Order: sequence, then C-alpha cells, then structure tokens
Amino acid sequence: MEIRTRSQFLALSIALVLLASSAAKLHAQAESPLPSWNDGPSKQALVDFVQRVTKEGGPDFVPVEERVAVFDNDGTLWCEQPIYVQFAFALDRVRALAPQHPEWNEKEPFATILKGDVAGLAALGEKALVEVVAATHAGMTPDDFKKTVNEWLATAKHPRFKRPYQDCVYQPMIEALDYLRANGFKTFVVSGGGVEFMRAWTETAYGIPPEQIVGSSGKLKYELLDGRPEIIKLPEVDFVDDGPGKPIGIQQNIGRHPILAFGNSDGDFEMLEWTTASDPQSPTSASEPGRPRPRLGLIVHHTDAGREYAYDRVSHVGKLDKALDAAKARGWIVINMKDDWNKIFPAP
Amino acid sequence: MEIRTRSQFLALSIALVLLASSAAKLHAQAESPLPSWNDGPSKQALVDFVQRVTKEGGPDFVPVEERVAVFDNDGTLWCEQPIYVQFAFALDRVRALAPQHPEWNEKEPFATILKGDVAGLAALGEKALVEVVAATHAGMTPDDFKKTVNEWLATAKHPRFKRPYQDCVYQPMIEALDYLRANGFKTFVVSGGGVEFMRAWTETAYGIPPEQIVGSSGKLKYELLDGRPEIIKLPEVDFVDDGPGKPIGIQQNIGRHPILAFGNSDGDFEMLEWTTASDPQSPTSASEPGRPRPRLGLIVHHTDAGREYAYDRVSHVGKLDKALDAAKARGWIVINMKDDWNKIFPAP
Repeated sequence: MEIRTRSQFLALSIALVLLASSAAKLHAQAESPLPSWNDGPSKQALVDFVQRVTKEGGPDFVPVEERVAVFDNDGTLWCEQPIYVQFAFALDRVRALAPQHPEWNEKEPFATILKGDVAGLAALGEKALVEVVAATHAGMTPDDFKKTVNEWLATAKHPRFKRPYQDCVYQPMIEALDYLRANGFKTFVVSGGGVEFMRAWTETAYGIPPEQIVGSSGKLKYELLDGRPEIIKLPEVDFVDDGPGKPIGIQQNIGRHPILAFGNSDGDFEMLEWTTASDPQSPTSASEPGRPRPRLGLIVHHTDAGREYAYDRVSHVGKLDKALDAAKARGWIVINMKDDWNKIFPAP
Repeated sequence: MEIRTRSQFLALSIALVLLASSAAKLHAQAESPLPSWNDGPSKQALVDFVQRVTKEGGPDFVPVEERVAVFDNDGTLWCEQPIYVQFAFALDRVRALAPQHPEWNEKEPFATILKGDVAGLAALGEKALVEVVAATHAGMTPDDFKKTVNEWLATAKHPRFKRPYQDCVYQPMIEALDYLRANGFKTFVVSGGGVEFMRAWTETAYGIPPEQIVGSSGKLKYELLDGRPEIIKLPEVDFVDDGPGKPIGIQQNIGRHPILAFGNSDGDFEMLEWTTASDPQSPTSASEPGRPRPRLGLIVHHTDAGREYAYDRVSHVGKLDKALDAAKARGWIVINMKDDWNKIFPAP
C-alpha cells in the first residue's frame, strides 16, 4: 500500500491503532477471568450463571441495573480465624487506651482483657462484648474512628500468617468480585461486622465504595461542637446485620432483591435463603414469562487446614451447620476451598 | 485522495466515522447543559462549582468517587404543595380501604379523613398521622407496597395542575441531576419521605436507583410464610430522615461527606450545614494542602405563585425560615424559582 497524502497516513494510523486495540481485547478475553479458581463444578456454576444472566435475548437475561450481588465479609472475603479481625482490633484498642483508664485494671471485662485472658472474656458473655465495643468504637466521629482503624491495620499482623490483615483477603474472591463487576454486577458487602470498621478499608481491598457496604451499626448523633457540626458515634447498638438481619439490611440499604449471594456461615443462611427463593412477586424472564429469574447462592467451605483453616459445624467463629445441610436441597454451591482454589491469599 | 485498495477504503471510512463523531461531540458540548435555567448568578454558581471540582490538576479538583451530591425530594425535586404527595397517597388509600374497615366511620383519625375534613386531620396531630401511615404503609411486603404506589400514581392527578404527580417534577432539577452525573457525580435523594414510597418511582423519574435513595423508614420483619421467605413492613417507625436526621442518614447510608446539597426547607438546614461545613478532618486540595475541599449548598426558593407556588417563612408545608436567614452568611445559593427557571415542569 502506497501512502500518498497526509490524510491517507492519518487514516491508516487510526486503522492500525483500532486493529491493535481489538487484538489486545481478544487476548484479554482469552485469559481466564478467575485464574485462582481450579476448573470444576464450583467455578463452572459461577461462570455459567454469569453467562446466562448477561446473554442478551436469552431466557435468563437480567438487566444491568438488577444485577445485584451480595457478599458476606468475615470468612467469605477475608480470613475470620482465629478470631474476627474487628475483635482483634477492639482488644488492641483496650490495651492502647488502658493507660488513660487505670480503673480498667479492676473493672470487667477490661481486667480480663488486660490480663490477656481471651477465653475468660468469652465466658463473660455478650454484655462484655457490648461494653468493649462501646469503649473502643464510640464517643468519636466516624472519620476519627476510620483513621484509628487504618492506623491499626498499618501495623497489626495476622498471628499465624504474619502478614497484614488486608493481605489475608481471599485472592479467588477478589477475582470473583472483579469478574462480576466486569459483567455489569454491582457488588455489595452485607456483613455482621461494623459498617464503619469495614468502610475504613473495603474500598482499597475490594474496590467496593462505602455506600455499598451494609453492616451492623451503632446509633449516631448530630451536634455542634464549638459551632462546627459533627456526627458522633454513640455507645448504643442500632442494627445487627446478621442472620435474619441480613435480608432486612439488604432491603433497607439496597432496596432490590439480589440475584447472587456469597456466604460462609449460618449467619448467612437467611441472606442465601432470601436471595435464592423464587418469589412470585419477582420479575420473571422477559422472553419466557413465568420462568423465574435465575438466582445463585454460594458458600465458602473452609476445608484447608494447611493453607488456611478447616472448620464448619462446631466452630466458635463462622459456624456452618444449618446452611451446609440446606445447601444440597436448595442448590447452593458449596466451594471446597482446598480443591476449588489454587491460591488462597494474594502474593505478598 | 485516490482510493486504491480495500484497506485504504476501510481506513478512510474509519477516519470519516471518527471525524463525524468528534463533530457531534463538539456540537453537544456547545449546547447548554441546563436549558431550563436562565443565565444568572444561580446557574453560574452551579456551573462554576462543577467546573472547579472536575478540573484535573486544579486546586479544587475532587476525585470522581468523592463527587457525592444529595437532594431533598419534596419541594426540591418535585412539587410539595398543596400537601405532600405521600400524604395525598395515604388519604386515598384510607378511602380505598374503607369498605374493608366499617369501624373507620366511627374511629379517628379515619372518620375525619372519610368525611373529607383534611384540616380537621391536621388538628388531630402527629399521632393521627402515625396511625394513618401504619394503616396504609404496613402489613405488606415492600414489593406489594411499591405496586400499590405505582397503581395509584398511574391514575392520581395533582389537584391544581391536573397532571400525574410524576409530571410535577421540576424540569430544571432533572437537568441539574443529569448535568452532575455527566460530570462524574453520584446523585442521592435524602428526603423525609418514606424510602419505599420513593423507590417505587424515583428510578424512572430521576434516574436514581433504589440503593441511592435515603429516606424515613419503618421497621421490617423477615419471616417464612408457607415456607416462602418474606419481608414485611411493620407499623413502627425506624428512622426519621429529616432535620438532624439527614446528616445521620447520609453517614449511615452513604458513608461519605457530600460536596453538594440541594434543599428547599428548614428540614434541609442540617444537611446543608453538614455538606458545606469546612471540616478539619476532610480531605483538602491535592495541589494546595490546607485549602479546604470545595462544597456547595443550594436552596430552591418557591417564588412563583403563577407557575407553581410562592411560600417560605409561614408555610405549613416546606417552611423555609431559618435556612433562608442562614443562606447569606454561609454562602448557600438561593434559587429564585421565578427568575432563575424558564420552565418549571416537563412538557406534557
């Protein structure tokens, strides 16, 4: 081909750029979107579902705005053993604040914590936990609280893996989040954890913005301090986003029925049940009226004591019993961490 | 230019398509993004703000994910006179449900409503209102409730404008929402109205999805009915998203500090105050550390008795008194509906 004029040259350049970009796109499509997932029925179920709901004109097509996917956090997106990360944070905060509270040496539950007796704390029950949360999570603005969380995360390490907690997120789940978003899904965290605790780091760790985090929360107060408006976290529980609280949290904060839910424990049972129930009110297939809208429930089953932890029916954290029994009858996909994932955590 | 080969032809075609699309783009940019706004200081303030926060490298640049804009609904996005639309809905529901409740003919506040005595109802006070809401908004699923709202909206008409309520949205505000979104803003409704009442129609009317609607809400219950999971609206107030409740609703549901707020009444005072306060914790300019992040508060002032309504300091609906006095000192832009808007409602 002979180039004669400036416009011919320009046109040819543009055509080459377009060709190159198409080639790059084809190459990207050829790569697997879920490299840390082994081929097998779990990965296949996820990929099949996504292909069905995104196939325009297909009987299971779901419009983009209704592609809502909800994820539990502890044990589903990051490691929850040997204790919830937020609990580790609260214990460290009690230790850090102790010099300002000499009375804590005599006062429960603080005395037990300061003696390092975590098992003893568990024996003190739920009221003790509420007191610890009140002392470490309230009386400050959400912005100050987030700063404290991030300062803690910058130095705290997982006791077994010796890496920052943010690096104890599950690489296959990060890929699942990316894969769903690349297919038009809006991803939400729906967790029993504190909403402000999560918002401090979930945007960086998961690419999920604060407005898409649903969690447990305390009451808030709006007030003027020296003429400046402030929001203060109060030491009073407002909402517990666990068990039957999860579908309620979804309705209150999202206002749509999710079509995909990922959990790992009995605290996710109702979220999985709600997400996968065929609801006579729900929209059905556009091309086949009456055909129920497709839904998918998935459970991360911790089966890998070598690379992470193995626990289910009798665990004190993330107990998975009722939901594991229900999975078969309800068609929920149980992910066998040991066999289904070729990688657990991101490269350091 | 001489076309000699198929590839030359292809390259030229592509170049022409690209040129045509650039020309279309230039043309679109040349059109004003806010055609129903008259030129003047109000429109200028909005446009200047958007240009400052979107100018990359500029001292007031705000990253896309932090461009959060919040809008009151009643009186800001749609007409709230002569009574709130949701109140008109509740009264019509009482009338529609009356045949199933013969006892209402004797029982207040229903007897007063069924007699058509709206002024008498106001005299019955807040408890009466709560009873009306409980009787008309609870005991059903959010999906059933939304269906009821939409069936009502399909036939109900504004008593003065004789058009559906959805057509009593403010055209200039629809343009402002579009304009902000085109500039990377995420738009939220933050209203004293019921969240499920709004979600029924706000996606269609404003292009705002249900998960970006913050409103007042009742408590919800998750339960199994004949083995099928349902969420039921309970006749119990959970959260009132008005006055100081608005910044709290913003923190709970969005978790970010908005940079722009639009209101019209004293119920929006704290939302405007919170949005425009310079907070020492807040991010400051990337290029000029210490320079506070830009914020904008705007008030729709109803000054147009001819085309809509004129009301402020003494109105029983949408009273604007304290916020109007504060506007000058705080730099909030007061939009003079009569002069600033050349159009009020969309074309029928």
